[in-house]
Amino acid sequence: MKSWVQSANDHLSHFPIQNLPYGVFARVGETPRCGAALGDQIIDLALLEKEGLIDAGNSVPVFNQPALNSFMELGKSAWDSVRVRLQELFKEGGVDALQGNAELTARVLVPMSEAELYLPFKVAEYTDFYAGKQHAMNIGTILRGAENALPPNWLHIPIGYNGRASTVVVSGTDVVRPLGQTKAPTAQVPSFKPCARLDIELEMGAVVGTPSKMGEPITVQQADDMIFGYVLLNDWSARDIQGWEYQPLGPFQAKAFATSISPWVVTKAALEEFRTSTPPREKELLPYLDEPGPMIYDIELQAHMQPKGAATPTLLCHTNYNRMYYSAAQQLTHHAIGGCKMNTGDLLGSGTISGAEKSEFGSLMELTWGGKEPITLEGGEQRTFIEDGDTLSLTGWAQGDGYRVGFGSCVGTVLPAPAFTPALSEKQGA
Amino acid sequence: MKSWVQSANDHLSHFPIQNLPYGVFARVGETPRCGAALGDQIIDLALLEKEGLIDAGNSVPVFNQPALNSFMELGKSAWDSVRVRLQELFKEGGVDALQGNAELTARVLVPMSEAELYLPFKVAEYTDFYAGKQHAMNIGTILRGAENALPPNWLHIPIGYNGRASTVVVSGTDVVRPLGQTKAPTAQVPSFKPCARLDIELEMGAVVGTPSKMGEPITVQQADDMIFGYVLLNDWSARDIQGWEYQPLGPFQAKAFATSISPWVVTKAALEEFRTSTPPREKELLPYLDEPGPMIYDIELQAHMQPKGAATPTLLCHTNYNRMYYSAAQQLTHHAIGGCKMNTGDLLGSGTISGAEKSEFGSLMELTWGGKEPITLEGGEQRTFIEDGDTLSLTGWAQGDGYRVGFGSCVGTVLPAPAFTPALSEKQGA
Repeated sequence: MKSWVQSANDHLSHFPIQNLPYGVFARVGETPRCGAALGDQIIDLALLEKEGLIDAGNSVPVFNQPALNSFMELGKSAWDSVRVRLQELFKEGGVDALQGNAELTARVLVPMSEAELYLPFKVAEYTDFYAGKQHAMNIGTILRGAENALPPNWLHIPIGYNGRASTVVVSGTDVVRPLGQTKAPTAQVPSFKPCARLDIELEMGAVVGTPSKMGEPITVQQADDMIFGYVLLNDWSARDIQGWEYQPLGPFQAKAFATSISPWVVTKAALEEFRTSTPPREKELLPYLDEPGPMIYDIELQAHMQPKGAATPTLLCHTNYNRMYYSAAQQLTHHAIGGCKMNTGDLLGSGTISGAEKSEFGSLMELTWGGKEPITLEGGEQRTFIEDGDTLSLTGWAQGDGYRVGFGSCVGTVLPAPAFTPALSEKQGA
Repeated sequence: MKSWVQSANDHLSHFPIQNLPYGVFARVGETPRCGAALGDQIIDLALLEKEGLIDAGNSVPVFNQPALNSFMELGKSAWDSVRVRLQELFKEGGVDALQGNAELTARVLVPMSEAELYLPFKVAEYTDFYAGKQHAMNIGTILRGAENALPPNWLHIPIGYNGRASTVVVSGTDVVRPLGQTKAPTAQVPSFKPCARLDIELEMGAVVGTPSKMGEPITVQQADDMIFGYVLLNDWSARDIQGWEYQPLGPFQAKAFATSISPWVVTKAALEEFRTSTPPREKELLPYLDEPGPMIYDIELQAHMQPKGAATPTLLCHTNYNRMYYSAAQQLTHHAIGGCKMNTGDLLGSGTISGAEKSEFGSLMELTWGGKEPITLEGGEQRTFIEDGDTLSLTGWAQGDGYRVGFGSCVGTVLPAPAFTPALSEKQGA
């Protein structure tokens, strides 16, 4: 299928007519609203809806809003009908509602180069999982040794923890290096200082479209039906803060300062042809986690680092989402199995996606083996962890026959920690 | 200070004019809106605001809404001015705007017996801490032995974990026993079944009124200024699910099925005279956690259990909020110290509040010492953990000179786990 929007037909474009991911955009001074990416253009969905050219089947408009949530909560039939209609409107030889109307077309298609992209949906709650076996083995080996690398529950439960929704930000948002409490193994007392082991985690995020009910478990098929789409996700991590705080209650401030996601939500429908199976089970799963069919996706992923002033970014790793032991549908099922209500806009991080080779490791913690083996960047600089001014970037795509269903990129630049000295005078003066 | 609403002057009433806690209420068929408790009446704040008798200083009304968030985000000057004005309107010998107008008074005062109470605010995110030292010692001793009871970070960090906001419910909401994965220490493989060790945790919840900024740390004084008020909080816990899932990422499904809070938010202003100091520091805290003054409160707390059909509830424990090692202000400071943005409506659980004596233990896990020492209820029934049909109830108050600043109660009845068998046919038919 080709589009009459020619830039969408480039075989390297992330946004062909087969993709049509959703996001939120505005030109300077305009009100943010929902759009879909097509080549180097953004389709103004609010305008198309106003003009009566698309209809999500809702009694009130859903696209003239600064978030996708209203559309997401409508569910599969609305998602499918809008997708089919958009492909009819924008494919070569489709319904001729726009091509004959240059004035309308010029208003409906907004060049990406002119638009700012916003967080695509209001994040209800954010949960991060730990479903990459190679990552769990690597981290476990670094922290506890090879014999005790994998926690006893890991092959039975898609383990995860609740993260912080308030600091989920869209690609392009700067990330301030966190202050926090750390204690080196040899230190007598903890210190309060800027994180010295700042890291990325290359992940995918699953976006919940339709809600579940409190007190009611769901099956893996029901969970898959609830998922609206997927984004790239960088789970920024402060390893030194994490090491001191995480026992026994899990990661907290080490993960709370920022989580970046890509601005375009790639729909489940666009990914359908890239479905594949999770790896063979090493131990039989309890029946509530059985997958009724292939539930993971074949998505190529890369992470790059570019220091301030460096001429080019350095490829840190390339891996694939199909490495994950647990699918997002399994994670969502487990999340709801005790009766936890899941809502429109809930975001589920996959866990770091690492492959078997060092070149496939999705975090600096693994790439530098706990900071012991520095990596050398293109310009000759060395890194163990992230330094101020470094820009970290994730990208990914599913490779179709002559086109890519892409996720664009997920970028963040690290800024220095804030100056902060709790004033003793406050104590004396209060 | 006395009120002309006579029921507020009963020395055992939880809601004298010194208290004036905020909540959300409606009679059957009415639209939920904000109110304040006074004796056995609810003051209809939406009506008072509409009549021009109170003014939160906002350009649009804040009380004709089904949540306190709009009022909460206005901050201290609005909170103070509304409180002062309400006391003027309802105290004996105050401003005579209502007493001379029987028709208006009859509309402004809604008998509690006629009203349903709702969740008082939209919970943005929920965090649960672990700040009771006796509780941490008890649980640690039960799980790991007395030598390793307290985690190494405990005396340095007010440790906590992110909980699930979607299942925070108001007192009176039934709680469905969760299904989940458990594994007995002697079992070879895990099982999927209803929780067999269902527990309560007696806690206080701090409610964040004004937000912080992403990337900007706050002091303990700033944190205290951000807190709008406090509620009773029951952090229902599935101990068997928790035991199998919690390492290394912390509590997840064991705590995700329900968290109950009391319907009335008692303001910081009403608690001001009950401020007291946290206990002496056993190890010096890092300066960012220094308290500029007394930051905890003297609040008597009780938990009761009443089986279905039992004539009377049984007192499980009585304790006091002043037992906590860390204050809510310290917890909020730590929560934001790495730059985590805190929002209006964030809810912070204190952690279980246990005193030194067995009669002061705030959970069944402690009261029955891990289920090994059953307790006997008033009617002769025995319990280790909660059984279906049991009603659990928390209450609490600060004792003033001739009046109580009370929190009312936080009640929940446990219902049986749902029938749920993932259909194999789904797998075959998909």
